[in-house]
Parts: sequence; structure tokens; C-alpha cells
Amino acid sequence: MTTDINLEEIKSPADIRTMTDAQLKQLAKELRQTLITKLSKHGGHVGPNLGMVDAIIALHYVFNTPEDKVVFDVSHQTYPHKMLTGRMDAFTQEAHYDDVTGYTNPSESPYDLFSLGHTSSAVALAAGMAKARDLKGEKHNVIAVIGDGSLSGGIAFEGLDYGATLGSNFIVIVNDNDMSIAENHGGIYADLRLLRNSKGEAEPNLFRSMGYAYRYVHNGNDIPSLIEAFRSVKDINYPVVVHINTEKGMGLPVAEAHKEQFHYSGPFDPKTGEATYSSDAEDYSDIFALETLRRIEEDKRVVAITAGTPGVLGFTPEKRRQAGRQFVDVGIAEQAAVDVASGLAKGGARPVVGLASTFLQRAFDQFSQDIALNRQPATFVVFYGGLYGLTDETHLGFFDISLLANIPGLEVLVPTCKEEFVDMLRWATLHSTVPTVVRAPSGAVVSRKDVRLLSDYTAARYDIVRHGSRVALIGAGTFFPLMSEAADELAKQGVDATLINPRQLSTLDKETLDTLGDYDIVITAEDGIVEGGFGQKVASYLGQAPVKVVNLGLPKAFLNRYNPRLVAEQCNLTVPQIVALATDNLR
Amino acid sequence: MTTDINLEEIKSPADIRTMTDAQLKQLAKELRQTLITKLSKHGGHVGPNLGMVDAIIALHYVFNTPEDKVVFDVSHQTYPHKMLTGRMDAFTQEAHYDDVTGYTNPSESPYDLFSLGHTSSAVALAAGMAKARDLKGEKHNVIAVIGDGSLSGGIAFEGLDYGATLGSNFIVIVNDNDMSIAENHGGIYADLRLLRNSKGEAEPNLFRSMGYAYRYVHNGNDIPSLIEAFRSVKDINYPVVVHINTEKGMGLPVAEAHKEQFHYSGPFDPKTGEATYSSDAEDYSDIFALETLRRIEEDKRVVAITAGTPGVLGFTPEKRRQAGRQFVDVGIAEQAAVDVASGLAKGGARPVVGLASTFLQRAFDQFSQDIALNRQPATFVVFYGGLYGLTDETHLGFFDISLLANIPGLEVLVPTCKEEFVDMLRWATLHSTVPTVVRAPSGAVVSRKDVRLLSDYTAARYDIVRHGSRVALIGAGTFFPLMSEAADELAKQGVDATLINPRQLSTLDKETLDTLGDYDIVITAEDGIVEGGFGQKVASYLGQAPVKVVNLGLPKAFLNRYNPRLVAEQCNLTVPQIVALATDNLR
Repeated sequence: MTTDINLEEIKSPADIRTMTDAQLKQLAKELRQTLITKLSKHGGHVGPNLGMVDAIIALHYVFNTPEDKVVFDVSHQTYPHKMLTGRMDAFTQEAHYDDVTGYTNPSESPYDLFSLGHTSSAVALAAGMAKARDLKGEKHNVIAVIGDGSLSGGIAFEGLDYGATLGSNFIVIVNDNDMSIAENHGGIYADLRLLRNSKGEAEPNLFRSMGYAYRYVHNGNDIPSLIEAFRSVKDINYPVVVHINTEKGMGLPVAEAHKEQFHYSGPFDPKTGEATYSSDAEDYSDIFALETLRRIEEDKRVVAITAGTPGVLGFTPEKRRQAGRQFVDVGIAEQAAVDVASGLAKGGARPVVGLASTFLQRAFDQFSQDIALNRQPATFVVFYGGLYGLTDETHLGFFDISLLANIPGLEVLVPTCKEEFVDMLRWATLHSTVPTVVRAPSGAVVSRKDVRLLSDYTAARYDIVRHGSRVALIGAGTFFPLMSEAADELAKQGVDATLINPRQLSTLDKETLDTLGDYDIVITAEDGIVEGGFGQKVASYLGQAPVKVVNLGLPKAFLNRYNPRLVAEQCNLTVPQIVALATDNLR
Repeated sequence: MTTDINLEEIKSPADIRTMTDAQLKQLAKELRQTLITKLSKHGGHVGPNLGMVDAIIALHYVFNTPEDKVVFDVSHQTYPHKMLTGRMDAFTQEAHYDDVTGYTNPSESPYDLFSLGHTSSAVALAAGMAKARDLKGEKHNVIAVIGDGSLSGGIAFEGLDYGATLGSNFIVIVNDNDMSIAENHGGIYADLRLLRNSKGEAEPNLFRSMGYAYRYVHNGNDIPSLIEAFRSVKDINYPVVVHINTEKGMGLPVAEAHKEQFHYSGPFDPKTGEATYSSDAEDYSDIFALETLRRIEEDKRVVAITAGTPGVLGFTPEKRRQAGRQFVDVGIAEQAAVDVASGLAKGGARPVVGLASTFLQRAFDQFSQDIALNRQPATFVVFYGGLYGLTDETHLGFFDISLLANIPGLEVLVPTCKEEFVDMLRWATLHSTVPTVVRAPSGAVVSRKDVRLLSDYTAARYDIVRHGSRVALIGAGTFFPLMSEAADELAKQGVDATLINPRQLSTLDKETLDTLGDYDIVITAEDGIVEGGFGQKVASYLGQAPVKVVNLGLPKAFLNRYNPRLVAEQCNLTVPQIVALATDNLR
């Protein structure tokens, strides 16, 4: 029987390199227990971390980190790595849970090489580090760790393709748990299955075909097997893939049984798996899924598309089954999602792609060339954009307006409420003849019973919701209700402001703007960075008019784990600040 | 002996479907002769088209185009396709040479499905069309044609990965001429070589590993072999790759011998291959290559990187040999180029990536996440950006400023002349501690002997080149000389304008801008779209000041084969127009 390990005494990987096999096994057990406790109380990436405990122990046991360099793809599986590299307190002590981010972060530790949160980049990043090593005549190992789900991203393939040409030490560990966030989709997964089923013996072999030596570890949760495999490739002088077969969620029965649900979870009961936080509130993903499913049932040409994140679209496994072949998951491959939509539209179907704001930027070229230049009437719905979206520096949703609204011919609609979201989505999916983006507002779902809907949103005119004078408040999307409240407050102070819902951010409504030229002040607010955004177009258009223009929105900065309320205040995005801005600028 | 074919009588593919093998061979010969005549007089993509004459004949012979759908990747190889689909005059008659674009274009013909010019997207686009066919219960063939060079782009892999899951007719023709634009680089090319050398028999097989049936055609310039192969996959009900081995430049000895030079060429003597147009003028690519090569020789940490387009960087085969392992070609894989640079910088090397403006947008996510968020001091040099860059709608260089200058922490330098370009490049490559973009001016190389250089360009202050009053002209990059000329002209008219070179477009120099608040007018000019660009930031910043602001730049539009002089006029980018703008707005 092995004695318990005192996790608090593990300050660096050196502390585990003298352990026996039995101690390492005990270490894995305790890391898992600690992780389950933290995750159940705090939430986080459950399955990815539980599945990788053993491999991360073996990695730090065999390799001389941090001199040997390990780049973890997405880095959402690095909680055990953080525990072994000087950050144990953030997992054992509840008061310190938030001392670490959910991803590798160089500001936390020299063992963390990059701040990463988007998939599939680790191989290319590691290949660059290997090349730097070779140019400088250094000798350490360079290792990329990438999951099977992440392999579907094009940049993973590009990185593998280049890495194979290095002609020097380059180790790619493929963590294959036969799952992406949801189930895998793509031709390569049949090959991975074949390799698992044949214990690595079968041909064809994707990795060999890309120029890699290949080694397979059938039990990727068995530390001795992993140590042996890693030792066999340590200091190797050519590119090699070590394909390890792991169990996602290992050690927590509910996570092993419900892999998609426990890829990421809020706080939960570790016995039953039930959420211990309230998640009853309707969100725009739910609304999207319901609306789209109805349309799918009515029209065989309607197809919903995801790039490996069906949950973002509200498409639960049950809803995916209902949609059948009218739901497409292209894998974590945003470029393909956009191009497949272009092909579908060209072929006469009605594709609607759901994307998280932070990930849509991975397909900019496809939006520009294959959708906008080719004028394909596909619909793109953006979730998690803006101030009340995701708050990690790697997952910000601030940048999509300045990206998409500057592409010629792409219609960017910004609904202000549920009713408008549903109406714009309906129009875009069924009737639009131009490529259309519908950006879900961020934050809680808002209802505006009196919103004025349109029969056609192509280059829609701005909606003048309230006709006033001297002060105009233009509130786009999420921030329309804020501007509406400010207008109410101004009215109380005797200032009769004009209140505008611009509806879309891609085409200036010059006729409406021309009526504001002799106002005292125009204030715009948008739920994205000010730079390159909507408000600056208004400021430029009115640049020769006497009216003052103030553009409100979010800062051009990689905020990290920010507090939305504080950021709103810093950006003058509160009712009293907007009211003061208006009244201070009255002539 | 076969009678000559009257090319002028070929109005559609139906006209070749009744031909005998001998007639088809004669047709190929005449198409090549016609192509060589046009290309030598007019310039264009030489090698790709000469190599694909036979395969395109066989495609239209076997498949029932346009009911069967063919998506050509990049579509720079579609001149023979245009000749067979109703556009022969544009090749046989010099007066009509410019009636067609250099790429497929749906506005020209129903046989052209997309306007394409960026690589690697055809497979995903075709997969979308196949899916649309299946949803609508249609039965035609869907075919993607992609070159071996284009296979290195991540979106090609993403498209193949998804296409394998269609479970229905999906045909991918891989045109393997063992060349990209230059030579191929990447792990997959060893596999393609193995497959060619084994006549398709060897394992591993990249295509099989991705879930495709596979068929190999050893002589991809032999029409009967191609017809047989295409017939064998016609109406197939599963995904298949037909790998055809072709000779790039076939039929023109100089093009066969000098494949890189004749990938694309201006007018040339078909006998000697010598250019018949003058190309003596120095350009920014030449300057870049000379400067970078010198730095490579001095410092082993300096690495130049291209994504499959070494010519864009001025790195001729001879210069690549000189640079040795300090020149990296990652294949046509812009995402990898940026991420490999990030890894290199992290590892202590000094990477400098050269990219054409139109292609850098393929790596937006990597610029944002892996370079800017991670603050890696890599250098990116942008070529062919702006008004005087590439003029095809598929290759415009207008959009990079609004893309890159809105990324937090990315320093975007806009040199106004050769001296500043060289100095900024030197600083960025050797000294910058932040990620830096140096955007080469577009058009002819300009010299400014009196330009004020800096020792540090981090968030550089604007250079007030001439102190005046009432009128300020801010000319960024390419358009500084234009603004300088306008200032001279205004001086002649008694208006003493302030003239500013902003040097960088990423950080407003608020101190300088504050001095302009009570001017009569500020005019900005930038060599990119106005929307989302630099000038609008100035307009927004000065939105509460009394000064009028006018932003000049390029339109948010996919211009096609435009005349730069006319566009400049339409955009008020001429000296008389700028002078008039200034004087008309004097208070």
C-alpha cells in the first residue's frame, strides 16, 4: 500500500521525478480527487483535465521541463500541469481557486509558454520553437500536445505539414479520447479509430502519410506505458507522433458517461452530475435552436452548421437527432463551416452557421472571399459577442463588428431584443438574397414588444424610435436598451433626445444621419471595440457637420477575466454617464 | 493524320464530346498553341494552364457540365476551361484578350461557379454543393479540382475532412505537378512522391487515411488515361480522390524547364523565355530581400518566412540558397507562417514574415491570438497592399489596415518611402520588442532623402513634416508624397498647411492631434478602405472639437481589374481635389 502524497509539497516537476510507479499512481489519484473537488465547486473543463492527468504526470516525469518545451493545444487540459508546476494552491485551497486562469499563461509560470485558448495552433507554435532551437544550436526537446478534436482544424494540419520538414527533434503527442467537445466529425476519425482498434498497426496511417514516425500507446491512462513511450522518443532527432488513447473524464463516472456535458461544466454535484447553479434563464442559443429546428422541419433546404461547438447554437444531442442530416458539424474547422455554407447556398440550400464571436475570426478570408465577394446568401449567427460574452483574454467577443462590418457586401444585423433577433433570423434564413450576419445581443435576453420589424433587412434604414432634437443617441444591438433608458432619463431632465436603433452596422443610413448634422451632439454605442467600428463611421460621415460626435464602445485591449460592470463604467456605458455626456455638450 | 480543329467552332463542351481520341489530342495541341500565343503576348498563369489542358478536356468530355459541377481551386488553371465553355475568342483574338478575367467568374459563364483566387477552398466549397444536391434530392456529380501546392493550405484539409463524411458522390481531382508556385515544402509531399513513384500503390496514403477511395493516373497529360479514370468515378456514390500526375508548363519547353519563373509571367518570348517587357525598376520586394539577406548573414537568429510565395519577398531561388536554413517556406499556409513566427520569436529567434496583403487575411486569428495577445516580437512585412497593388477582385490589397491596426498591441508601421521602409524593417527585425507590421508602400519606389528616422518606432509619434495652420494634411504611407505635393500647391495659393507623416496607424498620437482641434480642416489619406481605417479613428478622436475632418482612402468594395488612376480620382486622391477640399473648407 502506498502512502498518501502530500500535494502541497509538490512545488515543481523535480518533486515527482524521484517517485516510484506506485507513488505516481497515487499522485494521479490525488490529483483527480482534488480536481473533482475544485471542478464540482467552481466549474471548468472537466473531461479534458481528468483524462490527461496521467499523461501530464508522465510528461513532466520524463522530460526535463521547463528546459524541454511543451506547448499544450487550447491548453484547457492543463490543470494537472499547473498543479505540478508550482500552482497547487489554486486547486487545493478554495480561497485561491481563482489565482490561475483556465489556460496556460506565461505570466503565471515559466512552464507556460503561450496564452492559448483557440484550438489547433500548438503544433505550428511548437514547430517554430523547434526551429529557433536548431538555429541557436540548442538541444532540448520540443513537444506539442494536441487532442483528436483539435486535429480537425486546418492550422493543425499546416503545423504538422511544416513540422515534418524540420529534420530534428519534434514530438507531437496526440491525445485521442475519441471525442471533440461533442462527438467527432470528419474523415480522419475513421483512421484514428482504425489505429486504435489495431493498436496502432493498421494502414493507412494519417501521421505516417504526413512524414512522422509513429508510436501508439493503447492505454493512455497507464503511467508506466506512457513513461516508456515518452522515454523512447525523448531526444529523438526526427519528427514523431505519439498517439495515446485516453479516457475523457476518467475518474469521475458522470463525466465518463456524459462526455459532451462534462467537457466544460459549471458547478455540479460530483455524484449525480446535476448542476448546482441555476441555469433556467432563456438565452439566445436556445431561441436560435428552437427557431431553426422549426424551420428545418418546414424546409428541407435549411441546414444548421457548427464548427465543433453545437452547444453554442443550442443544438443539444436531442435537437441534433431531430435535425438529422440538416444539421452539419464540420469539426473544429471554422474555415470549412463558412465555405461549406457558401457551397450550400450556391447549390440552392439555405445554410445558417452559428459561431462564437471569438472563433469566427478564424474564417475571415472565407467570409471575405467565398461568402461576400461571391454574394452567397448564407446566414451567420454570432453568439457570445460583446461585453457580456466570454471574459477570458483568449475568448473575447469584442472584435467581430470591426471585422465583419468592413467586408463589402456583408449585411451585419444587430438585433436589440428577442423579437428582433427572431425576425432577422427568419428573414436571413428564408429570404435574404445577400450574405447576412445576425449578431445575438450579449447578456440577458431582452424583450421589446413594440419593436418595429421589417419585411426586408437588406441595407435596412435606421429606426428612429423617438424623435427629439439637439441630442441623438444611437444604440446598436446590446446597447439599445441602455440608450433608451438614457433617453428616458434625459426626458426627465427636460432634454428631448432622438433615439435610434440602427438595426445594421454595414451601411450608413446617410439620410437619417443628415438630419443630425445640426444637433448639439450625437452619441453612438456599440457592443464591440470602438476602433474600426460603427461609431467611427458615423463620426467620419459627420466630420464636416457642426455636430459633436462621441463614440462609446469597448477598448482595443485584451482584457482578461474582466468584470463587465466595471468595464462598462470605464467605457462610459452607464445611464448617468451617457446623460452627463449629453447634457455637458449642449450648446 | 488528324485534320485541324477549328477552335472558333467550339462553343460549349457538347462540341468536344463527339470527338475521337485523335481529335481530342489535336484539340489539346491547338489549345496549347493558342495559349502560348496569348500568354507570350499578354502574360498570365503559364505553367498551371499548359499542364491542365488535357485534364480539362477530359473533364468536360466525361462529365455533363454544367449540370455536373466542377469547382476549380484558385482557378488560375482555368484558361482551357474558359476556351471550351464559350469564351474561345478571348484567347484566339488579341482584341478580346481582356474580355475574360484570369480566374473563374460566374458573371462570365454558368460553367464558372465561384470567383476564386485564394487557394485551397475548392474542396470545402464543392462539399457544400454536394450536400445541397443531396438535401434537394438531385443526382449530378460534384467535382473539386485542386493542385498539390494548394493541398498545404489548412482549409483544403478541413474540406477534405468534411467531404469524406458526405456519404455520396464527391470527386476530388488532385492535380499533382510536383510544384507549388515554387517548389513544394511540407511533410505531405514525401507521401505524394511515394505515391507517384509507386504508381499509386504505396502506403501510407494521405487520401485513404482521410477516408477517400483512391485512383491514380500516372500520365495526367494523356487524355485517354484521364477519360478512363474519370469515367470510372463518374456517378460514384462515395468520396474518391483521383490523383493525376501532370507536367507543369507542358508544351512550352522554357516553361517546363523553369517552372517557378513560368508559374505566372508577364509577356515573354516563347522561344527564349525572356521577358519582352521592361522589369528593371526596383521594387520593395527587391529591397526587402537585399536587406533581409544581409541581416541573415550577420545574425543566425534572423529567419525569413514565406507561405509559398517566395517571389513576393524578392527571394529568388539564388537568394533562398544563400539564406539556407534561415529561409523557411511553410507551403501555402499563412496560418502556419504566422504561428511558426510566433514560436520562433518565443524561442529567441528574429522571424520576419513576408506576405501579400490579400493573403495575410487568411491568418487573422493567428495574428490576433498567437502574435498580438502573446506579444511575440515577430515582424510581418506586407507587400502588394493598397491602390497600386493587385487589381483583381480576388486579390485586392485594401483591407489589411482595417484588419491589422485594430488588433490590440500590434504595431502597424506605414513607411512613406524607401529610406523609411529600410529603417523600420531594420528596427523591427533586430530591435522591436513588440509584434510589428511594416507595410510596404504601393506603387513605384519613392525616395525621401530628408525623412526623419527614429531609433525606436514603438507607438511612434507622428512626424510633423511641415508646421502650418488652419489646414492639416495627414498622409499615411503611400499617400504621404501626395499630401506633400498638395501642401506645396496650397503654399503657392497662400495657404500654409501642416503636413504630417503618422508613421504608424495603430496608436493615435493624441498630443499631436490635440494641436489640430481648432484648425479649419484636417484631411487624412490612407492606402486602404476608409471604413474601419486610420482616418476614422482621427475623426472619432476629434469628434468633439470644432475642426472639420475629411477621411480619404479607398472604397469598401470588391473592385475588379480597376484602373488605379480612375479610382484615385473617384476617391478625391489627387492634388487638385485635395487642394480644393482644403480651400473650400477654410472658415
